[in-house]
Amino acid sequence: MTIDARRVIADLRELDRLTGGPDGARRVCWTKEWLRARELLRERLEDVGGVAVAQDEAGNLWATLPGDRDGTVAVGSHLDSVPNGGWLDGALGVMAALEVLRAAAADSHRHTAALVDFADEEGARFGRSLFGSSAVAGTLDTRAIEGLRDAEGGALGEVLAEHGVDLERTTAATARRESLIAYLELHIEQGPVLEGEGLPVAAVSGTFGVERYRFSFDGQASHAGTTPMDMRRDAGLAAAGTALAVEQIARRHEGVGTCGRVDLEPGIPTAVAGRADLLVDLRHAQGEPLAAMLAETRAEAARAAAGRGCSMSDSELWRIEPISFDGRLVTAALEAACTGRALPSGALHDAAEMARHLPAAMMFTSSTRGISHAKEEDTPEPDLERAIDAFGRLALRVLRGEVLG
Amino acid sequence: MTIDARRVIADLRELDRLTGGPDGARRVCWTKEWLRARELLRERLEDVGGVAVAQDEAGNLWATLPGDRDGTVAVGSHLDSVPNGGWLDGALGVMAALEVLRAAAADSHRHTAALVDFADEEGARFGRSLFGSSAVAGTLDTRAIEGLRDAEGGALGEVLAEHGVDLERTTAATARRESLIAYLELHIEQGPVLEGEGLPVAAVSGTFGVERYRFSFDGQASHAGTTPMDMRRDAGLAAAGTALAVEQIARRHEGVGTCGRVDLEPGIPTAVAGRADLLVDLRHAQGEPLAAMLAETRAEAARAAAGRGCSMSDSELWRIEPISFDGRLVTAALEAACTGRALPSGALHDAAEMARHLPAAMMFTSSTRGISHAKEEDTPEPDLERAIDAFGRLALRVLRGEVLG
Repeated sequence: MTIDARRVIADLRELDRLTGGPDGARRVCWTKEWLRARELLRERLEDVGGVAVAQDEAGNLWATLPGDRDGTVAVGSHLDSVPNGGWLDGALGVMAALEVLRAAAADSHRHTAALVDFADEEGARFGRSLFGSSAVAGTLDTRAIEGLRDAEGGALGEVLAEHGVDLERTTAATARRESLIAYLELHIEQGPVLEGEGLPVAAVSGTFGVERYRFSFDGQASHAGTTPMDMRRDAGLAAAGTALAVEQIARRHEGVGTCGRVDLEPGIPTAVAGRADLLVDLRHAQGEPLAAMLAETRAEAARAAAGRGCSMSDSELWRIEPISFDGRLVTAALEAACTGRALPSGALHDAAEMARHLPAAMMFTSSTRGISHAKEEDTPEPDLERAIDAFGRLALRVLRGEVLG
Repeated sequence: MTIDARRVIADLRELDRLTGGPDGARRVCWTKEWLRARELLRERLEDVGGVAVAQDEAGNLWATLPGDRDGTVAVGSHLDSVPNGGWLDGALGVMAALEVLRAAAADSHRHTAALVDFADEEGARFGRSLFGSSAVAGTLDTRAIEGLRDAEGGALGEVLAEHGVDLERTTAATARRESLIAYLELHIEQGPVLEGEGLPVAAVSGTFGVERYRFSFDGQASHAGTTPMDMRRDAGLAAAGTALAVEQIARRHEGVGTCGRVDLEPGIPTAVAGRADLLVDLRHAQGEPLAAMLAETRAEAARAAAGRGCSMSDSELWRIEPISFDGRLVTAALEAACTGRALPSGALHDAAEMARHLPAAMMFTSSTRGISHAKEEDTPEPDLERAIDAFGRLALRVLRGEVLG
């Protein structure tokens, strides 16, 4: 029995019919629609036969198909979506993993196969992304998140309890990784690179490191009509100059740099901004150029501030080191993809958390116009088929022990 | 009897004691504190003797002291303040006008003197500034403002009714200007120019014209991690480039140009901005350079947009032509100031509305560090004395018919 990519696409269409619609996917974690998605997954898993399904302490769903070799190879992603999300983000990897289990069920002399559907990868309701996978990786700090509330004021702990998850005990999910020898994930690229190169599928070499900072500029709020240009201390223009510098810095280092939010105070058209808060997100696949990008951004922000009589300070919002996937798995993914292309992932994925402790790798399929986290998210069906097929071949080789030895 | 500047300062201190405090002035129009301020003014006017006090259809307070020459010279400003405002903005002009009435009461062979305290110059509660003076000038469009509500949802019409003002009948206030032959106003500069030049008082030559526009940039929202720099259509950077261009344009034309607010969408640190709305406020004392500033801003915005694959559109938010005050009155104000300095006003004032129909002029006194609309607003007492004295001399000359003949 081999991989049937058309069956995976049919499962995805059915999932979309149940939990999507004209406004996009509605599978926000810890909601009824998310439970409905898992219900479909459980129904499909029952049909495979011989699969044991369980939810771990962090709400991750594990479906295990025993093998006759030691060790477990996990394949998966996440069923949860952002509000008005796309039909493929996360769901593709879970449904492809389901197909891997189907194919593995007919295969002998292999490791145990485990499908994992990680809980709350998106963090759409409470703002903490990679919830389930970081619990398994042991990087979830429950103290830091116990105070989180959703937009309606619902407390994280109470909402989790409704879903059979005790926030205090989520760290016990780390036990799940003890038997794991590899983690594999198929995902859409969520960017325009593969489409631009005309490639349906590629290996992923690792995930970008991220330095996310708030740069604050303090000048002097003053009247837009009465303050001559040469007597201004305009914090907003210092931020504007910094945003343009970030773009040049990112280009120079072949990374990415984004200023997606800026807040001016008092923030009215009739006042020079006395304060500006600029959020800067810098990413690079390698640590050294990433550090250089941050240092240069600091220097340019200080220069922009000084040039306008403003002061500048910065504070770290979030950071993660670049993560390289396992070399043997990346090579095998390249072989399976047959496109000779490996690219780093600019977005974060559950695989980045898993890669902290075990050999992990990902494959990407193309994203139409690079759009994701939106109802327009799509991938041409021929690309989906090629990618599901290639990912299935990779997973079956790893399950047979042909890659990691 | 002549002008007693110290009495004016004492009146201002008493007003501040009653309606100000550690958080600044609390005289927002159509509130109890504003009524308390008017109560103090009415008490002081009673002490003058021979003064008839009335509220017009737009809520403006008129205190009239009959003269023996035809025509009425109005002197005034506004008692209302922004929330947490300063003690001098508006109040200085009203209390100085009170002193003019005191001095005029002892004077014979003069025009009728009228103190006017315009209602809602600031527009702090409903967002429509110059309310009372524009009603008198006939430029208040009641249809356009009848739907306004305050932050608590209170309807403009209902709040006005509580203060004896029928929104439908405000236009009847235009009758007030029939007898007027001149309008004079003393105000703080609200900018740093006079302080910078070491001058306590100056004549005001007119008010800046204003072109206030929204520039909207449409690009493509995309993932901050997965979208390579050369595949972005970043609307936020187009806005940043435009803001920096506005600064250069304003400098080149010796006007002022401000970008005090920008809104990015989706407005999160992990997404390239697909849309940016930039509010641009351009001001100049002359119409021709102001028009050039707008044209150049449009061209630079279009260039910034095109350079990043964005589209650009602009829409007018508000505009007013530059207004020149009456030449004879400005000359007399220069003589009274004895500093040889006349400067245009970058801020709008009730005088700009009055100047549409009759000879008007203003005088400015210095503003410490140029700060206004804040509790820190201040003017050194010696400057206040010089300015009140100079303004009083100007007003008495105009009342005696020595300036307009």
